[in-house]
Amino acid sequence: MNFREEYQRKEGLVNDALARLMEEQRACPETIIKAMKYSLFAGGKRLRPILMLSAHELVGGDLKESLPLACGLELIHTYSLIHDDLPAMDDDDYRRGVLTNHKVFGEGMAILAGDALLNLSYECMLENAMKYPQRLENHLRAIKCIATAAGVQGMIGGQAVDLEWENKETDPEVLEYIHEHKTGALIVASLMAGILLENCGFDVQKSIESYGRAIGLAFQITDDILDITGSLEKLGKKPGRDEAKRKATFPQRYGLEKSRQMAEQLVEKAIEELKGFDHKADFLKELARFILLRQS
Amino acid sequence: MNFREEYQRKEGLVNDALARLMEEQRACPETIIKAMKYSLFAGGKRLRPILMLSAHELVGGDLKESLPLACGLELIHTYSLIHDDLPAMDDDDYRRGVLTNHKVFGEGMAILAGDALLNLSYECMLENAMKYPQRLENHLRAIKCIATAAGVQGMIGGQAVDLEWENKETDPEVLEYIHEHKTGALIVASLMAGILLENCGFDVQKSIESYGRAIGLAFQITDDILDITGSLEKLGKKPGRDEAKRKATFPQRYGLEKSRQMAEQLVEKAIEELKGFDHKADFLKELARFILLRQS
Repeated sequence: MNFREEYQRKEGLVNDALARLMEEQRACPETIIKAMKYSLFAGGKRLRPILMLSAHELVGGDLKESLPLACGLELIHTYSLIHDDLPAMDDDDYRRGVLTNHKVFGEGMAILAGDALLNLSYECMLENAMKYPQRLENHLRAIKCIATAAGVQGMIGGQAVDLEWENKETDPEVLEYIHEHKTGALIVASLMAGILLENCGFDVQKSIESYGRAIGLAFQITDDILDITGSLEKLGKKPGRDEAKRKATFPQRYGLEKSRQMAEQLVEKAIEELKGFDHKADFLKELARFILLRQS
Repeated sequence: MNFREEYQRKEGLVNDALARLMEEQRACPETIIKAMKYSLFAGGKRLRPILMLSAHELVGGDLKESLPLACGLELIHTYSLIHDDLPAMDDDDYRRGVLTNHKVFGEGMAILAGDALLNLSYECMLENAMKYPQRLENHLRAIKCIATAAGVQGMIGGQAVDLEWENKETDPEVLEYIHEHKTGALIVASLMAGILLENCGFDVQKSIESYGRAIGLAFQITDDILDITGSLEKLGKKPGRDEAKRKATFPQRYGLEKSRQMAEQLVEKAIEELKGFDHKADFLKELARFILLRQS
């Protein structure tokens, strides 16, 4: 298996499916569709959809069946970025190398475009479920898993605590809560939803969940490091934003070197969790390493 | 049947279920839960949940089964009000007689609280569906119907067009589009979701949909009229906001008297649609009249 080729193959599947989904909305008001597409096709890495497809593949699933759920994850991720970038939240002007949504379409339309992407995620996942009447229970379990991770018990809860603690001294517990919920929850759910679409044993679920938690945290630590060491060109957004806002980050707490070590150890731990799957898990193992090496 | 008593009974069911749902979220970050509850329990009329319960009752359903979907509708409605009131959208300071969400919790938290309510709606409806493994198809049909109406093909689409046409001269077609989508779509879906939970004939679906369209439009026209004739005390929000923002409304287009007549005719039409159900539909018939007579 060539990791890069396999990543690009899955990325292509997701991008094509997202393009088809947005094409289906063409009868809707033009401006909001433009705003939704602007952020959806601004060059995201499609990490969450690719995690879901790979987990589904690992347990023998048919990717055609999970692709709309993979799209649902990217829609949720994209809406969260649009709202996160708003002046009332992180107030960012650049994202993925281009102006943020509200800078192009105005704040009101950006709020609505985010709302619409979140809602479309459920429309898309529910419509897909209805195509598999014999497997509705599996689909519902998978969608519910994503919904819980995206909500106030997961991602939104993490964002809320992040917002509250901005410009305040945070203790390690709060930092851990923010990272586990703001980024970690949806990454874990991406993998778990792929597993839940099939009927897997508890062991498989446990390994995949541990793998997910480890790469989720490694991803966030790397994000924090890149905010210090990255450049606008490579990062696609202004570096140094965390420090300017006195955000709770790992490098701020533990220093750059210690943070790098922590991320590396987490990736090793993640790979270790997959040892029971041998070659079938090669792609997910490489993906864990990719998270550490990424530049954006 | 005493209309007022029956309305209060259903209102009580919805309020109790919403309180239980929010109690279940008590482990989540405190401030966002407070912000969500602030708007959720600010004295809404629970019109959409009551429409759903009444439609479900009309076709012989068990209200225990539809109550979480009724809550889901109120969560969606509440999120849409919070986001609508934001400075970047309608910029309103008062709603239901109290300060709007962002005035109390700040814009960032209000955006997140809205996001969380929308997401919680799906969590709640999906969890309920999983309790009825034999009836998953019916539940999925009902949830999908609500999702479509809430999204860019429905409510959000209407809000987007409303935002775009602010301070511009609108033609009747645009006005109709905004009203049908911004308010009408979710009202129709409230009724349709109740029907779709049971296996009903096409005739029943058609009558209920026509009833819903008629009361949805009557509701919006009455809203527009109250914005002119109402007071802050009775309305719970500042009147005259539409005119100040040169919003497209029925009274602005057709005058007060003609608008009143249009709303009355729509209510008569709605009641006529239910004639096939005789006594069983008495509550929904009274509800149509109530929409016309309301003061807030």
